[in-house]
Amino acid sequence: MNIDPTSGPILLTPGPLTTRIETRQAMLRDWGSRDAAFIAMTAELRKRLVDIVNGAKTHVAVPLQGSGTFIVEAAIATLLKPTDRLLVLSNGAYGERMIAIATRLGRHVRGLHWAEDKPVVPAAVEEALAADGSITHVALVHCETTSGLLNPMPDIAAIVAKRGMALLLDAMSSFGALPIDLDAVPVTAVLASSNKCLEGAPGLGFALIEKDALAASKGVSPSLSLDLHDQWRGFESNGQWRFTPPVQVVAALLEALRQFEVEGGQTARLSRYRQNFAILSEGMRRLGFSLYLDEAVQAPIIATFRSPPDFPFQRFYDALAARGFLIYPGKLTKADSFRIGCIGALEPHDFVRLIDAVTASLDVLRTSA
Amino acid sequence: MNIDPTSGPILLTPGPLTTRIETRQAMLRDWGSRDAAFIAMTAELRKRLVDIVNGAKTHVAVPLQGSGTFIVEAAIATLLKPTDRLLVLSNGAYGERMIAIATRLGRHVRGLHWAEDKPVVPAAVEEALAADGSITHVALVHCETTSGLLNPMPDIAAIVAKRGMALLLDAMSSFGALPIDLDAVPVTAVLASSNKCLEGAPGLGFALIEKDALAASKGVSPSLSLDLHDQWRGFESNGQWRFTPPVQVVAALLEALRQFEVEGGQTARLSRYRQNFAILSEGMRRLGFSLYLDEAVQAPIIATFRSPPDFPFQRFYDALAARGFLIYPGKLTKADSFRIGCIGALEPHDFVRLIDAVTASLDVLRTSA
Repeated sequence: MNIDPTSGPILLTPGPLTTRIETRQAMLRDWGSRDAAFIAMTAELRKRLVDIVNGAKTHVAVPLQGSGTFIVEAAIATLLKPTDRLLVLSNGAYGERMIAIATRLGRHVRGLHWAEDKPVVPAAVEEALAADGSITHVALVHCETTSGLLNPMPDIAAIVAKRGMALLLDAMSSFGALPIDLDAVPVTAVLASSNKCLEGAPGLGFALIEKDALAASKGVSPSLSLDLHDQWRGFESNGQWRFTPPVQVVAALLEALRQFEVEGGQTARLSRYRQNFAILSEGMRRLGFSLYLDEAVQAPIIATFRSPPDFPFQRFYDALAARGFLIYPGKLTKADSFRIGCIGALEPHDFVRLIDAVTASLDVLRTSA
Repeated sequence: MNIDPTSGPILLTPGPLTTRIETRQAMLRDWGSRDAAFIAMTAELRKRLVDIVNGAKTHVAVPLQGSGTFIVEAAIATLLKPTDRLLVLSNGAYGERMIAIATRLGRHVRGLHWAEDKPVVPAAVEEALAADGSITHVALVHCETTSGLLNPMPDIAAIVAKRGMALLLDAMSSFGALPIDLDAVPVTAVLASSNKCLEGAPGLGFALIEKDALAASKGVSPSLSLDLHDQWRGFESNGQWRFTPPVQVVAALLEALRQFEVEGGQTARLSRYRQNFAILSEGMRRLGFSLYLDEAVQAPIIATFRSPPDFPFQRFYDALAARGFLIYPGKLTKADSFRIGCIGALEPHDFVRLIDAVTASLDVLRTSA
């Protein structure tokens, strides 16, 4: 993919990330948010989102203004009644954030924790649910953006469904790239945002929620803005957003979804990210960097590399930035690390160039040390 | 101002509205949200916002992802403690919305109501505050977008301040066009959004809050996403947004704020809107339409016109839309009406063309009746 010269540096971050110029060009127009043209765009957006995960028969798409955290909080606020009990399966910052959100909202919540480099263990979940019959909802992060770790989602979903509990899935950094099949895997709510594997502009989250669960949640949310039941009823009643939508961000996501289809959908996107990841991890390995995670749990979405001893990260970052590549510091609590995203409108040849830039940056660090 | 041909119809709505092509072009780039370049943009944005209302000495700017309703809810959630009591002065849909927000949040709130065509009466507010010493916060809508009515904000602010209470001002459709001088008029929190008189793209709200009040609100908000204290501390600690910002919407607002300064700031913007309003109201009067509000309380922001008996609004809307102008249905509960916005990147000559289009549309309605 060609990156337009007006696009600035290449972002190798967990999002906002590099988008296609066509996606950004879709933002060059104004729309009346209650006009027929925009109502049709919203309808197409909602349909495309639910179709990606085979959810049309059972689920509805509810987009919401704001970042990914907003849609996660909205789902918890809308679906979790004051008498319900949430178990969060946590092995990273985004699991912890769900615990923080539910705690703030005054909802009953507890966490089941694993180390940041270890996947959630289905047998342990089964045991926890068997031991505490009061649990009504379970929350899982599909791919932990903290580390890049892929949790065993289908196994967890089956365990949760067997007990008649509801699963809330934070699919922020997996949606569109890793398979989620709502026809085959029972998930009550899938939560994601515009600006990761769908390669849209940031400013929009969305939830795909089982119709029955959403219909039963009227009046539950203590927040008017974040009430996904009311947001859904708004869309269903007149096709409009309750409150002013970010019309250009909606247009960008719709354009990105059309490109997603043209590219070949989820399998094609995963294949491209896998190629990106392979070039990245092999190139970095040759340069002496090791991945933080075991291969078995590593998703080809975000690669976390261990920092070598006394690694001058900021100087490395600056040297790479001078060459047009922006990476991300680590977010792990236990290990000194940095992250490089494989997602966004980037092709394998961009990662070949990145490895060249890393090589040159390391040379600079060595000679100026 | 020239509207680019890619810009679609001219929006005469309360927002999202017509923006300048330069504002939309600012969205053609990607930014890393934690990179130095974007941190500098956020700092400039926050400074420009607080400077518009002379708040630099006393207030801080806290932008927030989402629509205007999100920032209003965030301010109430952050500043109103469970033991506090809010009095909402309401003469329209946006006053009622504040009551609904506070009620949902479980906060103590009551409304003091006026008809939709009557301004809030300072003496009645004084009386209400004298009669109920438990009130801690008062909320007022500066310009009611429902009708276009301007409330007597400085008088209300003085009364609230005299009693040591806090004033929350919904300045959604006034900010940038109508004068707000925080050096002279005591307001605890001014709330507005990117996509009205500042003429940015939608997707961002902001609060200008007294530092002392915000500092005293740690841990109050039941919402993590909408916690303006934490959002502020995030900006102050490392210049970054806590959660993924809509980077392109931020860039568009920053560009719009630079243009705002070039145009001559608030007084120049008000002058342009006044000219727009004068051409609109005089032209519509000649065509037999009357304004809903008395001149004395009419702000030159949104004009509400009474619908003539048996007026076929949808056909009128469609005929105007076919000529490139989108207007807005009314939102009044008592009177059949429609609204035409005077705000956005529109010049007097656009309103001359609009009156021609209205004339032609009425001809079509007559001949096809």
